[in-house]
Amino acid sequence: MIWTRATRIRILGRMNVHTYDTKDIIYALATAWGTAPIAVIRISGQGCVEALKPLFSRPEALGASASHTVLHGDLIDPKYKNPIDEVLVTVFRDGRGYTGEESVEISCHGSIPGIESIFAQLKDVGMRPASPGEFTFRAFMHGRMDLTRAEAVMEIVSSQSRLSHSLALGRLEGNLFSLIEEIKQQVLQVVSMVELQLDYAEDEIADDVAFPFEALEEAKRRIDALLSTYEMGKLYGEGARVVLAGATNAGKSTLFNLLLREERSIVSEVHGTTRDFIESKTVLDGIPVRLYDTAGLRESSDAIEMEGIRRTRKLLSEADLILLMLDGTEHDDTSVSQYRHLLEDPRCILVWNKTDLTTKPPAKGSYPLSAKRGEGFATLRDEMVRRLTKETDRPDGQALVIESSRQRDELKHASDALVRAVALAREELPMDIVAVELAEALHALGSLTGEVASDDILERIFSRFCVGK
Amino acid sequence: MIWTRATRIRILGRMNVHTYDTKDIIYALATAWGTAPIAVIRISGQGCVEALKPLFSRPEALGASASHTVLHGDLIDPKYKNPIDEVLVTVFRDGRGYTGEESVEISCHGSIPGIESIFAQLKDVGMRPASPGEFTFRAFMHGRMDLTRAEAVMEIVSSQSRLSHSLALGRLEGNLFSLIEEIKQQVLQVVSMVELQLDYAEDEIADDVAFPFEALEEAKRRIDALLSTYEMGKLYGEGARVVLAGATNAGKSTLFNLLLREERSIVSEVHGTTRDFIESKTVLDGIPVRLYDTAGLRESSDAIEMEGIRRTRKLLSEADLILLMLDGTEHDDTSVSQYRHLLEDPRCILVWNKTDLTTKPPAKGSYPLSAKRGEGFATLRDEMVRRLTKETDRPDGQALVIESSRQRDELKHASDALVRAVALAREELPMDIVAVELAEALHALGSLTGEVASDDILERIFSRFCVGK
Repeated sequence: MIWTRATRIRILGRMNVHTYDTKDIIYALATAWGTAPIAVIRISGQGCVEALKPLFSRPEALGASASHTVLHGDLIDPKYKNPIDEVLVTVFRDGRGYTGEESVEISCHGSIPGIESIFAQLKDVGMRPASPGEFTFRAFMHGRMDLTRAEAVMEIVSSQSRLSHSLALGRLEGNLFSLIEEIKQQVLQVVSMVELQLDYAEDEIADDVAFPFEALEEAKRRIDALLSTYEMGKLYGEGARVVLAGATNAGKSTLFNLLLREERSIVSEVHGTTRDFIESKTVLDGIPVRLYDTAGLRESSDAIEMEGIRRTRKLLSEADLILLMLDGTEHDDTSVSQYRHLLEDPRCILVWNKTDLTTKPPAKGSYPLSAKRGEGFATLRDEMVRRLTKETDRPDGQALVIESSRQRDELKHASDALVRAVALAREELPMDIVAVELAEALHALGSLTGEVASDDILERIFSRFCVGK
Repeated sequence: MIWTRATRIRILGRMNVHTYDTKDIIYALATAWGTAPIAVIRISGQGCVEALKPLFSRPEALGASASHTVLHGDLIDPKYKNPIDEVLVTVFRDGRGYTGEESVEISCHGSIPGIESIFAQLKDVGMRPASPGEFTFRAFMHGRMDLTRAEAVMEIVSSQSRLSHSLALGRLEGNLFSLIEEIKQQVLQVVSMVELQLDYAEDEIADDVAFPFEALEEAKRRIDALLSTYEMGKLYGEGARVVLAGATNAGKSTLFNLLLREERSIVSEVHGTTRDFIESKTVLDGIPVRLYDTAGLRESSDAIEMEGIRRTRKLLSEADLILLMLDGTEHDDTSVSQYRHLLEDPRCILVWNKTDLTTKPPAKGSYPLSAKRGEGFATLRDEMVRRLTKETDRPDGQALVIESSRQRDELKHASDALVRAVALAREELPMDIVAVELAEALHALGSLTGEVASDDILERIFSRFCVGK
């Protein structure tokens, strides 16, 4: 027998990770760069309150301050005793702040030279700039949050619609963690039973102890249900690319503006640096959408135009949805055939514009529209959402949905291991062999929450964060 | 006698200004827009803590919280009871926050859809978005700061160098206010004396009570000294425009980059949208500088080039300093004469580049440079600073310097009135006439600090602020 007791399940304790040194006092700007009334500088690390005292106009009050209290005063340059800025300092005592360490937040004026001056002083008293994600990493290391919550922090900050924000918030609140923990407990119960069997000699145990297939299959079903939310999570989290194609005079810009008006407040227009397309962001029914208005598919010998068409082709190839817009006054079923290539693409929706100017029937399978009057727009918009969601349900804000490919991989890993465990057990192979697969499943679930985590997994996760988080 | 007792000095009490309604509860994002770990939403107005309670997961704790304490919890949608964001809420009780009103700061995740969701909820409970400068306006209305400090808040936030930040901070700390108050006291003492004379009949008072010319002249000197700092304050506050002109191959870009390297950390490059110039920001010896690298003064018949040259001419006309850069290997004293027009301009510095490639002597009055090697750069840089500061001293961070044209105008107004008062008194005109001029001076000084302020002055000042301040 190859498999020995050493292959038994081991629930690994949390590993010590030295990707970042958690002994330093770190600082970073936590708010967006730019001129604004207020900016917040985050500081974390044992002894940071003491270290800040020489820079603060009220050192005694700072030293004596209770957790979660705010002090008003000046930051001063200790060499020349002159004020650097008028600030509010919030103190979080050991174990009570975001990082789980003693920490301080400085609320200063949102002036870039002012922030630079403060940074220079913080460096002078021995603090160092934080690396990306280092605050959240410390929160993780101090057991303030598991990995699913840490990833949710990043997903919240980068969320592009209220819905994806709300879904990520659910993960931050620990919904995903709780579900994974429940599934893990289910698997662990099976493991205990297997361990019991292994602890006794084969002849000591009754043959009629049934292997709990049902429990494992139930665990697998729950994992698979979560796995199946990934495409939806990715769609609502990362968003979709929608390209408007068609001739210049077909009315693309009018439709573009109609789509932008959908959720105006979050729209920010980004003009392309070349004259080949315009990119804007909008939100359709909770789905963040990047909208591209192309230069059209005109014939041209001009070099810049050619480059524009090349880029349009690239955009089309990367699109999740293509709206081919034709001028209904100029086209009919026959002339549409020149766009055959695009129309055969399953991502393409044919939009038949200018219905207000013609009585000709729209081409077969097209969506008639008067972009100018907005007639037909609601139907088109619904079809766009339907195509993007591929008829999956729209998640409500409370649903448990994953959007991280790392989490998907770990879930897939766990699911596959459970399938193998069940298959091996059905073949009545020795429990040692089944145990290996169960360990694999537990390891994958543990990696998901960060209970088991290697240095490079952690580094990969946290280095994707922004500085200050 | 035309002048009656009614013309006597009246120190006006503060006027009631209804530019903004201070009864509403207002909110605004106080940090810069953009994706970031943290964003801070400021709320101010009587009853705002109570109004926020239904939106907070710990309403009792919020209601009972002391001033300057921080609560951790969730913002919730009261309709569906679902969390909107995990936040820190800081409470400032009546009279103790920035505005002098009961106020709250919400530190939330720096996600734009998240902030939008919170705004929607705040609106739902009856709060309204703040107008530009409305928080500072309230601080002023509640006597938390005078106008010189309120303006300093804006000057700090928009400061472009550490020096201008530091100068504005001095004004925020009240240095300017104190000086104006001292001068006002000096004038007021004279006013009391004048009032005393007016209170008695002409024959009751001894003729030998000397008019205090010296005190008024001293006050005028102090006002004039402050006035004389305006050009310096404007230079360090608003910064200067420096244009690099000359042929494309003269090495302008190399010098451009050398200048940008001066204070690298605050440099942000802004590319022009047309191909006629590049604009960047840098800081030279504390002076914020906008640097323009022009398309050159080439001859061209191409329409776009012509437009470029037109813009270059416009840039040159608005420049505070022009660096005309010539290739020393191609030019000599004679050929330089083609730039006669520019060279006669007192703002122009002739830079003689590529000294490393030629042994020819540089043109008369030029600054020899090897931009490539950096030789001659320090001398050129010093000359630039000397020209920009017009040999005024560089202020140290503690100096009292004004940069507001409003303040300059009020000071000028006060100074002129004192000159007239002294002249009238020397002509031994009736004290009533002198009193009018003294009242004028006091009114101007009172307007400067906001003790006397009309609605439109206040509106003009605060509407220039950003929202959230």
